Amino acid sequence: MTLIPPELTRLASSKIREFPDFPETGVLFRDFTPLMADGDSFGALIDGLAKVYEGKVDAIAGLESRGFILAAPLAKQLGVGVLPIRKSGKLPGPVLSISYELEYGQARMEIRPDSVPKGARVLIVDDVLATGGTAEAGAQLIESAGGIVVGICVLIELLDLKGQEKVSHRNLASVIQL
Amino acid sequence: MTLIPPELTRLASSKIREFPDFPETGVLFRDFTPLMADGDSFGALIDGLAKVYEGKVDAIAGLESRGFILAAPLAKQLGVGVLPIRKSGKLPGPVLSISYELEYGQARMEIRPDSVPKGARVLIVDDVLATGGTAEAGAQLIESAGGIVVGICVLIELLDLKGQEKVSHRNLASVIQL
Repeated sequence: MTLIPPELTRLASSKIREFPDFPETGVLFRDFTPLMADGDSFGALIDGLAKVYEGKVDAIAGLESRGFILAAPLAKQLGVGVLPIRKSGKLPGPVLSISYELEYGQARMEIRPDSVPKGARVLIVDDVLATGGTAEAGAQLIESAGGIVVGICVLIELLDLKGQEKVSHRNLASVIQL
Repeated sequence: MTLIPPELTRLASSKIREFPDFPETGVLFRDFTPLMADGDSFGALIDGLAKVYEGKVDAIAGLESRGFILAAPLAKQLGVGVLPIRKSGKLPGPVLSISYELEYGQARMEIRPDSVPKGARVLIVDDVLATGGTAEAGAQLIESAGGIVVGICVLIELLDLKGQEKVSHRNLASVIQL
C-alpha cells in the first residue's frame, strides 16, 4: 500500500471546489482548478507525489484529459516519460483499445502499444477515481502493451462509488478521499 | 520575439513521427508521443522552455488536451499555476466561451474567469499551431478573463497553414517549424 503524507492531503483538500449536478443531475463535480491555478500548491502537490514514487516507476500513464495535468509534471519531476492514454479516435496508427463504464455513461480509450517500454513499471495517474472503471481500463491497456502496472494514483477518490473495490488488486493511492 | 535555443529544436525534432491522412484524409498528423515517452528528452524540453520563460510569466494556460501535457510541467518548473482552457461543456459554473475554426472543423472552448488572476502575465501553450485559430481563441479567452497574454508557445508550427499570420500580434515561439 502506498501512503500519501497527511500534509499533502491537507494542502490539496483546501483547494477543491464542489459543483452539484454537473455534468449531469445527481453528480457532484469536484473541481481542482483552484489547486492547479495556485503555483505554490500545485508545485507542492507534484513534489510531494514525486517523493512518494521516487525510484519506483519507469513511466507515468496519464488518462485524458485532466489526468495529463497531474501525470506530465509528475513524470518530469521523476525524470521519466509520460504515456498518454487517450479517448477513442485521437491516436494515429495501430492502437490498443478498451471500452469501460463511467460514473455517467460509457466510453472507450486507446494507447499506442509501441509507446510503452516492455517491462516498464508504470503508474496510472488520473484526477478522480469514481467507479474505478477508467483507472482499471487504463491499467489493463498498459498491461496489454507489455507494461507492469505498479499502482494507481488519483487526486480525489469518491468513496461512495466504491471504485476501490474494482481496483482492489492494484496499489491505489488517493491524495484526497471524499 | 522569443527565441527557442537551436539545441531544443534539434532534440524535439528527432522525436516526432508523421502519420498521413489522420484524423482526416489530407491531414498530416504530427505525433509527439515518442518525445513524451522518453523521460530524458521530455525533461530536457521542459527545462529548456522554462529557461526561455523564467521570470516572464505568472501563469501558463494549457489548451485541452495535448496542450496540458506541455503546459502543466512547464508551470511546475516555473513555479507558477496552470490554467486549463477546456473544450465546451467540461467546466462547471460560470464560464467564458469562444468558438473558433480548426484545421479540420470548428470547435468551442471555455475557461472559468475566476481561474485567471487579474493582470497576470499568461503564456498560452499548445502542442501544434495549425491555422492559429485555437491559440488565438485561447489568448482572447485569457484577455476576456483579465489576464495579459505575454506569448504563445507551441511545440510544432505547421508553416503551410500560415497560423503565424493569425497570431502575428502575439509573441509566438515555436520549438519546431515544419
